[in-house]
Amino acid sequence: MSIYLHDIPLPEAKACLETALKEAGLWRVLGVETIPLDENALGRVLAKPVWAKVSSPHYHASAMDGFAVRAEGTAGAQPSSPLFLPCSLAPSPPGSLAQYVDTGDPLPDWANAVIPIENVESLDVDGKITHDLRAPAAIRIRAAVTPWSHVRALGEDIVATQLVLVAGQVLRPVDLGAIAAAGHAEIKVARRPRVAILPTGTELVPIGSELEPGDILEYNSLVLSAQVNAWGGEAVRFPITPDSFEAIVQRVQEAARDCDLILLNAGSSAGAEDFSAKVVEKLGTLLVHGVAVRPGHPVILGVIARSREATAKQSPISEEIASSGIERPPRNDTIPIIGVPGYPVSAALTAEIFVEPLLAKWLGRRPGELPTESATLTRKVASPGGDDDYLRVAVGKVGDKILAAPLARGAGVITSLVRADGLVILPRGVQGVKAGEQVTVHLYRSKAEVERTIFCIGSHDMTLDLLVQFLAEHDRRLASANVGSVGGLVALKRGESHLAGSHLLDPETGEYNLSYIRQYLPGVPVRVYGFVGREQGLITRKGNPKRVKNLDDLTKPEVRYVNRQRGAGTRVLLDYHLCRSGINSSSIQGYGQEEYTHLGVAAAVASGRADCGLGIPAAAQSLDLDFVPLFQETYQLIIPMIFAESELLAPLFIVINNKVFHDTVAAMPGYNISEMGKLVAEL
Amino acid sequence: MSIYLHDIPLPEAKACLETALKEAGLWRVLGVETIPLDENALGRVLAKPVWAKVSSPHYHASAMDGFAVRAEGTAGAQPSSPLFLPCSLAPSPPGSLAQYVDTGDPLPDWANAVIPIENVESLDVDGKITHDLRAPAAIRIRAAVTPWSHVRALGEDIVATQLVLVAGQVLRPVDLGAIAAAGHAEIKVARRPRVAILPTGTELVPIGSELEPGDILEYNSLVLSAQVNAWGGEAVRFPITPDSFEAIVQRVQEAARDCDLILLNAGSSAGAEDFSAKVVEKLGTLLVHGVAVRPGHPVILGVIARSREATAKQSPISEEIASSGIERPPRNDTIPIIGVPGYPVSAALTAEIFVEPLLAKWLGRRPGELPTESATLTRKVASPGGDDDYLRVAVGKVGDKILAAPLARGAGVITSLVRADGLVILPRGVQGVKAGEQVTVHLYRSKAEVERTIFCIGSHDMTLDLLVQFLAEHDRRLASANVGSVGGLVALKRGESHLAGSHLLDPETGEYNLSYIRQYLPGVPVRVYGFVGREQGLITRKGNPKRVKNLDDLTKPEVRYVNRQRGAGTRVLLDYHLCRSGINSSSIQGYGQEEYTHLGVAAAVASGRADCGLGIPAAAQSLDLDFVPLFQETYQLIIPMIFAESELLAPLFIVINNKVFHDTVAAMPGYNISEMGKLVAEL
Repeated sequence: MSIYLHDIPLPEAKACLETALKEAGLWRVLGVETIPLDENALGRVLAKPVWAKVSSPHYHASAMDGFAVRAEGTAGAQPSSPLFLPCSLAPSPPGSLAQYVDTGDPLPDWANAVIPIENVESLDVDGKITHDLRAPAAIRIRAAVTPWSHVRALGEDIVATQLVLVAGQVLRPVDLGAIAAAGHAEIKVARRPRVAILPTGTELVPIGSELEPGDILEYNSLVLSAQVNAWGGEAVRFPITPDSFEAIVQRVQEAARDCDLILLNAGSSAGAEDFSAKVVEKLGTLLVHGVAVRPGHPVILGVIARSREATAKQSPISEEIASSGIERPPRNDTIPIIGVPGYPVSAALTAEIFVEPLLAKWLGRRPGELPTESATLTRKVASPGGDDDYLRVAVGKVGDKILAAPLARGAGVITSLVRADGLVILPRGVQGVKAGEQVTVHLYRSKAEVERTIFCIGSHDMTLDLLVQFLAEHDRRLASANVGSVGGLVALKRGESHLAGSHLLDPETGEYNLSYIRQYLPGVPVRVYGFVGREQGLITRKGNPKRVKNLDDLTKPEVRYVNRQRGAGTRVLLDYHLCRSGINSSSIQGYGQEEYTHLGVAAAVASGRADCGLGIPAAAQSLDLDFVPLFQETYQLIIPMIFAESELLAPLFIVINNKVFHDTVAAMPGYNISEMGKLVAEL
Repeated sequence: MSIYLHDIPLPEAKACLETALKEAGLWRVLGVETIPLDENALGRVLAKPVWAKVSSPHYHASAMDGFAVRAEGTAGAQPSSPLFLPCSLAPSPPGSLAQYVDTGDPLPDWANAVIPIENVESLDVDGKITHDLRAPAAIRIRAAVTPWSHVRALGEDIVATQLVLVAGQVLRPVDLGAIAAAGHAEIKVARRPRVAILPTGTELVPIGSELEPGDILEYNSLVLSAQVNAWGGEAVRFPITPDSFEAIVQRVQEAARDCDLILLNAGSSAGAEDFSAKVVEKLGTLLVHGVAVRPGHPVILGVIARSREATAKQSPISEEIASSGIERPPRNDTIPIIGVPGYPVSAALTAEIFVEPLLAKWLGRRPGELPTESATLTRKVASPGGDDDYLRVAVGKVGDKILAAPLARGAGVITSLVRADGLVILPRGVQGVKAGEQVTVHLYRSKAEVERTIFCIGSHDMTLDLLVQFLAEHDRRLASANVGSVGGLVALKRGESHLAGSHLLDPETGEYNLSYIRQYLPGVPVRVYGFVGREQGLITRKGNPKRVKNLDDLTKPEVRYVNRQRGAGTRVLLDYHLCRSGINSSSIQGYGQEEYTHLGVAAAVASGRADCGLGIPAAAQSLDLDFVPLFQETYQLIIPMIFAESELLAPLFIVINNKVFHDTVAAMPGYNISEMGKLVAEL
C-alpha cells in the first residue's frame, strides 16, 4: 500500500516539532558544562553571563615607562625654569620625589602621576646628564603634570561586578581575553549537542569506492556532519545501514542511546524501500511526513523514546564515550528524529532549515542568518506555488546592477550548491518570477566577493575551466553560464554579463562573430579578442563502432546523434555544413536531442545514449572517446568596451597574455593559441 | 642608551616583511598535505584545484520510483485509450516492456525513460489492479512520455574532467560533498602553519592567578592563539618567559625548531626591559622596529635563522610532534618573527594587521575582509596624523541613520574590542574627523545585528547591565554609552540614540527630568517611563576612616573627593545640595577629579585615590565599600515617541514589565522598583 506524503507548510512543520520538543522539555539549552578558559573555548556559546570578578587594571598602573611623581610637586616647572626632583628607588613619603616605573608597574602609594621618560632629563649626583635612565640621582623636568596623567587607574578597562559578556555569546578571540581580564579561569558554556547521522540504503557505497552502475556514493553523511560541526554540534557519523526495516530500527536505537538528535538520511520518501516513516512510527511519534518546501519535500519529523533496555546494553559508541570522559548527556526520555531526503541538495537544505535552528536553540545562540541583497533575476523562474521554493543563484554585479542568475534546479545537482552565491526564497503562493524582477538574495558570499565576480555567459569551451582557476589566482571569480554563442550576445545586449565566448560562423563571409555582433549588439561598443582556434569533429565511442566519418553518415538509420542546443556555435556550424552538403536535419536520428556543453555531448556518447555528436577533441579525450576531425573554427571573447577597461576585468587580460596559461591551453588536444589575447576588432 | 622606535608607515613595513620572505622563498603556500576527505577537512584550504575523476551520476539513473520504459513504446497512450505494457524483472530485449525501478536505480540498457509510479496502474495476471507495486504483471498508462524524461542522465551534475573547485577554496560542507561526488577520497590542502606564541614578562601571571599589585594577567597568548587557530594556523602556546635576554633567546631558538612563525609578545617597545629587538638582532635581522599605526606602534618585524645545532637537540615540543605523527614542516632556514606589543588591544590589532594576511598567503587563501558600511560619526575624534589610526566604534541604526560611536581608545582597554561593532581606519595624514562626518566602518557584525541594536546614551545605572542581559534573551543588543543625564538628552535631540536614562532634579520644582526635557528637547515628542528609585549617598572606604557623614565633611582638608562629570545627574544632585547648604565647590579637594560611572567613583575610593564620592549603594557594595545614604532620587527612561512604538524597542517594554527582571533589580541594594515600566509623562 502506498504511503502518501503530506504537504505541510514549512512554518506549520517547524511549529509541530517545536511543540513536541517543548512538551518533552527540550526547547531550551540542552546542558551547561564548565570548561577551562583556553583556545578550545573559541566558538563555544556562553551559557551564563560573565560578570567581572576583578577589576582591570586591579591597581593604579603606570601607562608609560617613566617617573612616578606627585602632580602637586611638579607645579611651576616651565621650559625656562626647570624643576629638579630627587629620585628614590624605595617607596618614600610624599614630597618632591620621583621614582622610576616601567609600563604596567604599580604606582607607589604616594604618587599620583607619571612623567614619560622622554620628557625628563636624567641627572647623576653631580647634576650632569646620565645614561643610567632607571636609577638617576635626580630628574629635571620642564613642564608640570596634572594628577593621574599617564596612569591607568584601577578599573579603567573593567570594574569588578560589571557585565563583561552576555549569555548566548559565541566566543571570539577577544572575548576570551576579556573573560581572562575579568578574573575567570573557567567558563560555563552550552554543551555541544550530539547529532547522530545515519546513512541508509543498500545502493550506497563509501566515498572513494570503485563504482558500478547503480552504486551511489554516500557523501550526504559527510556534508551533514560538517554542517553539524560548523553549527556548534558534535556529529557522530554511523556506517551505512542497508535498506532493512529491522537493521534501521536497531541502528536508530543504538544512536538513541547517546545522541540528542538523529538524522536518518534517505528512505524518507514513500517508495517501496523507504522505511524511515515506519521506523519512526514504530519507535515513537511521526509528527510530519512531507513538508511543502522545494527541494526537500519528503522530510520526516518525529520524536522517539530512548529505550531503557537499549540504555543498559552498551554500544561501541557509548563505550567510547564512557572511556573518553566526555560528559554524558542528561537522560531525556525523548529524542527528536529527522528523516532527511536523499538527494544531496535536499539533504543540505533540510539541514539548514531544520537542524541549524534547533542546534541554535540547544546552544542558546541566535540562529545563523545570511546577509541579504536586492538583485535582478536574469531569467524567468517557474515555481510550483504550493511550496516554499529555495532557488540557488549565481550573483554578480554587471555595471550598476546586481544580478541573480538561477542555477540548475535539480535536487541531485550538488554542484549547484557549490556554485551558488546565494538563495532566493520564493514563498508558498508565489507561482514564479519574471526575468528582470527584483528579488531578495540571501548571500552565501560577501558583497565584496560578489563585486569581484566576472559573469561570462555564452558558448562553452573547456579552457574556461582553466581560466576559472587562473583568474582565482588573480583574485577574480569567473562565473560562467553556458547558453551558447547567440545566448551570450543576447546577455551582453541585456547588460547581464561582462563577456561572452562566441564562435558564430557567418555563412556569407566565412568570418566569425562580427556580423552577429552587428546584428545582436547594434550601438554597443565592443572589443573582440582572439582566444582559441579549435578543431570541431565527431565525438564517437572508442573504436568508432558505427564508423561515422562525415556528416553524410549521420543519416544512417543505425546512427543516433546528440545535438547541441539552438544558438550554440557548434549547432550553427553543423547546420551550415548540413546545408552546404544538402542534408536534411530531419533525416538525422537524435537531431532534436540537445545538450548544453561539449562535455554533455561527450557524456551522452560515452553512456551509449548516442553514437556521436559534434564537439571538440578535448571533450572526447577527457572521457576516453574517439574523435573524427571535420572543421577548424575560431572561438573569441566579446567584451563590451565599458568592461574591457574596467579594473574588474584587468586580470583577465593578464591571464590571456600569460605564457603559463598559453602553454597549459596548448597542451590540450586540438587547441591553437596563436590568436590568444590579440585584439581582433573594435566595433 | 635608548633605543628609538621608528615610525615606518604601515604599507612600507608590510612590504619590508614581504620582501624578506620572498628572498627566503617563504612568500607562497608553505606546504601541501594529502588528507582524507572527512569532516576534519572542513575549513581547510585546497592547495590544488579539484578536477572530477568520475561523472555524477556515473550512469543513467532513474529520477523517480517508477517503471523504466522505451519512450517510443508509449506512443499513442491517452486518457481515453490506455496502453498496456507487460512487465519484466530481468533485463529484456527492447520492445513494449516496463521494468520497476527505484529512484537512483540504473536504467536498463534497453530503456530510455521512466514513468513515475503515481502515473501508472499496476495490474495482476488477470488484468486486475494489484497492490504489488514492484512486480505487477503489467502496467496501464494513459499518457506517452518523451525520451529521457524522469531520468538523471550520466554527468547531469558533474562530468568527469570538469573543474569542481579552485585552489584556494576554504572548504565548506557542500564542497566536501562535491569533491566526494567527483570521485575523490583524499584531497590536497595547504599545511597549517605552526605559529609559536611566546609570552614574556616577569610581571606576567597565568590566567586565574590570585593578583598582587604589579601582577599582569597573561591572556594575550590566549587571544593570539585563538586568532591564529581561527585563521587556519596551528597555534603553539609557550609558557611565560621572564624578562631575561638569555631566557628569551633560548625560548625563541626552541620555538624556531618546529614553527613557521614566532610571535614574541611584549618587550617590543624601547624600555629598559624590552629585549625583543635585541633578541631578533642577535638571532637574525631586525627589519622594522616601530610602525606608524595606532594602537600598536611598537611592532617589531624580523627574520631569524633556524639554528642547525638547535634542530639536532630535541625539545619537548618537537618530541611531541614526532610522536603525534604530524608532518614536520619543511626545513626553511629562515623564520619570520613578529614582536607584538603588550597592550591587549595593540596585540590583537597587530595580529589582524600582520599575522592574518601572512597566514592567508601561506594557506593560499584570500586575506579576510570585513564588510563595510557608511556611518555618521557621533563625536569628534582627534588623530595623531602621522599614524594609521584604528578606531573602535559601536554601530547602531537610529531612525534612518547608521551611527558610529567611538569607544574608549586606550590600548589597554580590551573591553573596547569586545564591545566594538566595527573599526574606522583613519589613514596616515588625516588629523581627525568631526562629529557628523561620514566614515567607512569595517563591520565585525552583520548589518542585521546592527539593526537589532538599541542605542542607550545617558546616565549610568548598574541595572543597565541587567537590562543588557535580559534584552539579549529577547534578541536585542543594548549598546550603552555613559555620558551623563544631560548628555543623554543632547544625544536624543541629535537623533543619536533610542533612549536615555536620566535623573535630573529640577531645583525649582523638586521634579525629575520634565523641565530638562522641555529645555533640551523642545518639539520632540517623548515618553517618560519610570525605571528605578535609588538611594544616593557617599561611597567611602570600609569603616569610613575619614568619618564623612554629610556634605559639610567634604570640605575637611584631609578628605579627598571624587566627582562625577559635568552633566551627570549625580553631579547636578551634588551641586543642588551644595548650593542649598551654602558650600563652595572650590573648598572641596578633588571636586575637579571626574569619573564617568558610579563604579568608576567606587573604584577610585577602593583604590585609595579618593576618600569618598557621591554614588549609589550597589556600586559601594560591589567593591565592598561603605555607604552613607543622603538622598533619594528618581531614575527614568526618556524615549522619543517614534522609537517608543517601534518594533526595535518592543522587547524593552516586555523586560521592564517582567517580574523576573523586577525581582532581580529589587534584590540589588538601594533600589525601588515601584515605578518601573509605568508611563510617567508624555511630552
